[in-house]
Amino acid sequence: MDISHIEHIGIAVPNLEEAIKFYEETLGLKCFAIEEVADQKVRTAFFKVGQTKIELLEGTAPESAICKFIAGNNGRGGIQHIAFNITDGVANGLAEMSEKGCALIDKAPRKGAEGLDIAFLHPKSTCGTLIELCEDPAKK
Amino acid sequence: MDISHIEHIGIAVPNLEEAIKFYEETLGLKCFAIEEVADQKVRTAFFKVGQTKIELLEGTAPESAICKFIAGNNGRGGIQHIAFNITDGVANGLAEMSEKGCALIDKAPRKGAEGLDIAFLHPKSTCGTLIELCEDPAKK
Repeated sequence: MDISHIEHIGIAVPNLEEAIKFYEETLGLKCFAIEEVADQKVRTAFFKVGQTKIELLEGTAPESAICKFIAGNNGRGGIQHIAFNITDGVANGLAEMSEKGCALIDKAPRKGAEGLDIAFLHPKSTCGTLIELCEDPAKK
Repeated sequence: MDISHIEHIGIAVPNLEEAIKFYEETLGLKCFAIEEVADQKVRTAFFKVGQTKIELLEGTAPESAICKFIAGNNGRGGIQHIAFNITDGVANGLAEMSEKGCALIDKAPRKGAEGLDIAFLHPKSTCGTLIELCEDPAKK
């Protein structure tokens, strides 16, 4: 599996508008897109910081992974996942990870925000961190 | 404050050697340095992924922030902080953040791993995320 860079960092926030205000007005970053990903029950706001995006995530239903993360974090936000950009296919990456004994959340790639092919590794195999593999199919 | 890129992502791990093994053997990344930062009571291992480093952190004493993070996370590791590289001085950044109403953990820059000037913002002002500002004094 060939990892080129960190595509994005997923940060869970209790309130998206409040978080956008902090990242724009206090840190001075610029939100370039807001998107709802119905499949994952989240609303996201994107910022670019050098090579990497920051993806702020607000859950839109209590059963979303983001709402569960915040509930498990005493109602506070925090960094929920890290996404590696891979250049030789998410399906190939999953096959390699599985072969090396890594448990997978997604057995096959699915569509994420911005039309990326994405898949998550299981934190029980990654020393606790939720790791996403992703690739832009338009850049294949 | 001028943020150029994400300098590193700090990931708390219960066992540094086990985590290095996962990042090297499963993900295929290369550890380029291991360092103990006595001041912060941590041992760190560094990996470069594109522009950004991954800093794995193992606490060396129960009172370290890393051990507390893991204890508060049911004994599991996870992403503990994100560090922005700033190009106009950490002290200037802190002054600007404070002026904008952001609570600070560090009132003045101190020395972190790799000789960087570092300072942390307080998560109560950042929608929950532990944010570090850093700058390499050799690149000023």
